[in-house]
Amino acid sequence: MTSGLGGSLPDWLHDRAHISPDRIALEADGFRLDFGELDAGAAELAAGLDHTGVKPGEIVALLAQNGALFVQAVHAVARAGAALMPLNLRLTPSELAWQLSDAGAHRLLHDAANRDLAIALRDEAAPLELLALEKLPVQSAPGDPPRFDLAALHSVVYTSGTTGRPKGAMLTYGNHLWSATASALNLGLQPDDRWLACLPLFHVGGLSILLRSVIYGTTAVVHPGFDPARVNAAIDSEGDGVTIVSVVANMLQRMLDERSDQPYPSSLRCVLLGGGPAPEPLLRRCAEIGVPVVQTYGLTETASQIATLAPQDALPRLGAAGKPLFGAELRIVDENDSQRAAGEAGEIAVRGPSVTPGYLNRPEETAAAIRDGWLHTGDIGYLDGEGYLYILDRRDDLIVSGGENIYPAEIEATLQSHPDVLEAGVYGVEDDRWGRSPVAVVVLHEGAVPSTEALLAFCRERLAAYKAPKRIDFASSLPRNAAGKLLRNRLGDVSSFS
Amino acid sequence: MTSGLGGSLPDWLHDRAHISPDRIALEADGFRLDFGELDAGAAELAAGLDHTGVKPGEIVALLAQNGALFVQAVHAVARAGAALMPLNLRLTPSELAWQLSDAGAHRLLHDAANRDLAIALRDEAAPLELLALEKLPVQSAPGDPPRFDLAALHSVVYTSGTTGRPKGAMLTYGNHLWSATASALNLGLQPDDRWLACLPLFHVGGLSILLRSVIYGTTAVVHPGFDPARVNAAIDSEGDGVTIVSVVANMLQRMLDERSDQPYPSSLRCVLLGGGPAPEPLLRRCAEIGVPVVQTYGLTETASQIATLAPQDALPRLGAAGKPLFGAELRIVDENDSQRAAGEAGEIAVRGPSVTPGYLNRPEETAAAIRDGWLHTGDIGYLDGEGYLYILDRRDDLIVSGGENIYPAEIEATLQSHPDVLEAGVYGVEDDRWGRSPVAVVVLHEGAVPSTEALLAFCRERLAAYKAPKRIDFASSLPRNAAGKLLRNRLGDVSSFS
Repeated sequence: MTSGLGGSLPDWLHDRAHISPDRIALEADGFRLDFGELDAGAAELAAGLDHTGVKPGEIVALLAQNGALFVQAVHAVARAGAALMPLNLRLTPSELAWQLSDAGAHRLLHDAANRDLAIALRDEAAPLELLALEKLPVQSAPGDPPRFDLAALHSVVYTSGTTGRPKGAMLTYGNHLWSATASALNLGLQPDDRWLACLPLFHVGGLSILLRSVIYGTTAVVHPGFDPARVNAAIDSEGDGVTIVSVVANMLQRMLDERSDQPYPSSLRCVLLGGGPAPEPLLRRCAEIGVPVVQTYGLTETASQIATLAPQDALPRLGAAGKPLFGAELRIVDENDSQRAAGEAGEIAVRGPSVTPGYLNRPEETAAAIRDGWLHTGDIGYLDGEGYLYILDRRDDLIVSGGENIYPAEIEATLQSHPDVLEAGVYGVEDDRWGRSPVAVVVLHEGAVPSTEALLAFCRERLAAYKAPKRIDFASSLPRNAAGKLLRNRLGDVSSFS
Repeated sequence: MTSGLGGSLPDWLHDRAHISPDRIALEADGFRLDFGELDAGAAELAAGLDHTGVKPGEIVALLAQNGALFVQAVHAVARAGAALMPLNLRLTPSELAWQLSDAGAHRLLHDAANRDLAIALRDEAAPLELLALEKLPVQSAPGDPPRFDLAALHSVVYTSGTTGRPKGAMLTYGNHLWSATASALNLGLQPDDRWLACLPLFHVGGLSILLRSVIYGTTAVVHPGFDPARVNAAIDSEGDGVTIVSVVANMLQRMLDERSDQPYPSSLRCVLLGGGPAPEPLLRRCAEIGVPVVQTYGLTETASQIATLAPQDALPRLGAAGKPLFGAELRIVDENDSQRAAGEAGEIAVRGPSVTPGYLNRPEETAAAIRDGWLHTGDIGYLDGEGYLYILDRRDDLIVSGGENIYPAEIEATLQSHPDVLEAGVYGVEDDRWGRSPVAVVVLHEGAVPSTEALLAFCRERLAAYKAPKRIDFASSLPRNAAGKLLRNRLGDVSSFS
């Protein structure tokens, strides 16, 4: 790809530890590591990997909880010259075994907490060598580590694909470097930034926080999982409050619920909101109490953000996912790859130095997705007259009903603006007359009394007739993947239980 | 060079204008241009260049005052696919003609103020086509401009070499991009930054401010020249005060004199101090009134900064020029290119993505300067135990006296700490007994009474005997180049008039 960054740089963590050894690199598991300490730990671990026989260029899988060991493993795998394949802890052993075999990975780093899962995996995916992170031989590290080739493979991250078999997106050092750089060019960079990862580190949204931390020389704060009260406490903490946090809409909603919409301190300068179109009621609620929400659009294939609102646009551009980051390009195309005009919906295509060179061992899927240098995302959206991106939906979730396009996200947003509704999901079902029709699954606020009729009337007042759900089911929660993304293809299972 | 950045990006200014058209790009000549306006102006000018026959890849020289036209020309030349050769306005027509012929440049962009110089140049350097900036045919610009190839030549900047023939340092797009990025990773980046250029834009220290502006989306404030009162007013301006300013020691001293050491407002977050070792009395004076001085070490060949103090180290590391910026490496070598230990002085060698691939049309000088991927700078310095760089002097200015190394900068700093001394320069003269000996030229504060004996006694109390100047001459000013660097090889001329 001509748009990928080439050249080489010193090992990022080692470089950073040379420049600012005493700055705090990581806060996790109740303690703090400065860059000098993180570097020393990663060096030992890398030497251990080397001793174990890990070869430069091989893919090493990682199965670990959010925590300091995960972070050290990320840097150690890079230092050993291997590529990192972070595994999704929510998948079954057979799903993970399939991914390992697909990637041709034969070594698995795991932490103590995931020992049983690792053993189950080994039974399914032979041959697989297990390397317990806590038990790797402690080796003294040699001198300066090898340089990073920006065109080389840094990581393989399997897409959290809501449909079909996952594919391993290859991300180069250059992809990650440019992603971090472009994010700073948009959000700004303050030496005392503290970026909270309460998303899984095995997703690109979490992983990229760790890489930004060493490139910027700022602190990554890592929580073991998402706990709204804990996130709020980390933001409120006086003197060392989190300044940036990455969340999806559902998490942000729970954070606001937990604090009863009390405003956040001014030290919180950015709530980076990804994971799909954000419900407008949530954005308005944030605007009212001054939460500095910045919507973003990103993919595994773009090493996280590719378009993000500028902080000062957050309020005037409510609902927009921003403009492409510096160096990135974005266009909307129709089925024939022709560019669509402003305001017209179509598939979002992206290009730039943070875009994956392709899918591991998948030349055909790569060629299908990346055409003329543009990655076709499968997401539907439009650009307004000034070039701001608005995300409508996943192409796969589009409901074509009587020739009309129905975007589930639009109906969900409408339902979520009803005071009784906590969250809503919409999917398509077969319909003799229209081909397909929308069905909604709704989670009500505690104490609210379900009334299908009232909710349907609410929708009919606000939406064109063909968009009103054919049926509304109730559930206690909605199916989401580890990144918090709504799994619409599983909504049918949930609603059948209601 | 494996360390240079490769790949391609959209035209920087055009990309920036798409992302944030309404942000202020430039303040110069008494008016403001936003990025949309600057982009439109550069596009017209680029189309004009195209119309005039400028070919992609050719070198276009620029002879213009600091101002908006200079800035538009910089971006227009890049957009036309040509490489920029900014000319030093203080040189004579024959010196400039030599450079044009050395570079093989046959087209010269000039502003109205430099028309006579341009014509004189044309008479010396045939064939040379003159293009008056104010009179270029206005052309409507086509659609999206070509992408920037990061490995391509962006500019040729002749070194302000204090000795010998100047050489044209080639700077690629990747050199400038990484320089801007690495600077932000060290100094931080705030969307409302305003960076003042009061140095000539034809030097890399000024030029790099313009490129950072479009990469960051922040404002470049351009003064026609250095006027301490005007600089101070720009910093003090309420609501839109300059936040960063690039200066050399002599300028900073005059700024403080002009305001009688009144503290600056807190909006001034960084005074980037380059141009050689800074006198300690000046640094202490700044520390006392809280001027946020950040020392830096940079060269034309490194597209400006290569090592810079972190802002928080400014006071604790008084006198140090910092650590290498992220991605850059620095070492001290002896005559045989062997690395010297911490604390030992030697030649400074640098490596990294902002380092020039070499000198234009000078394969031998390039090979002599860049060995094993390391650029040997000709500057003398040492690294302390923690890796902080201390600049001692130019290798060419070193005075070897009776087998001892004498660094003029050390004697100058001592003289400058005397209350009667405004500035001091030291150079070597032949000495029958010692080989060479130091001679000082001193500029006194107004009203001070010159006393050679008192100054010599002052030096003898503070310096080893062999370092004390053999003679002290007095002058009304010291010879400096356009970047404000002391020209020690011309000190003999000055002192002979005293």
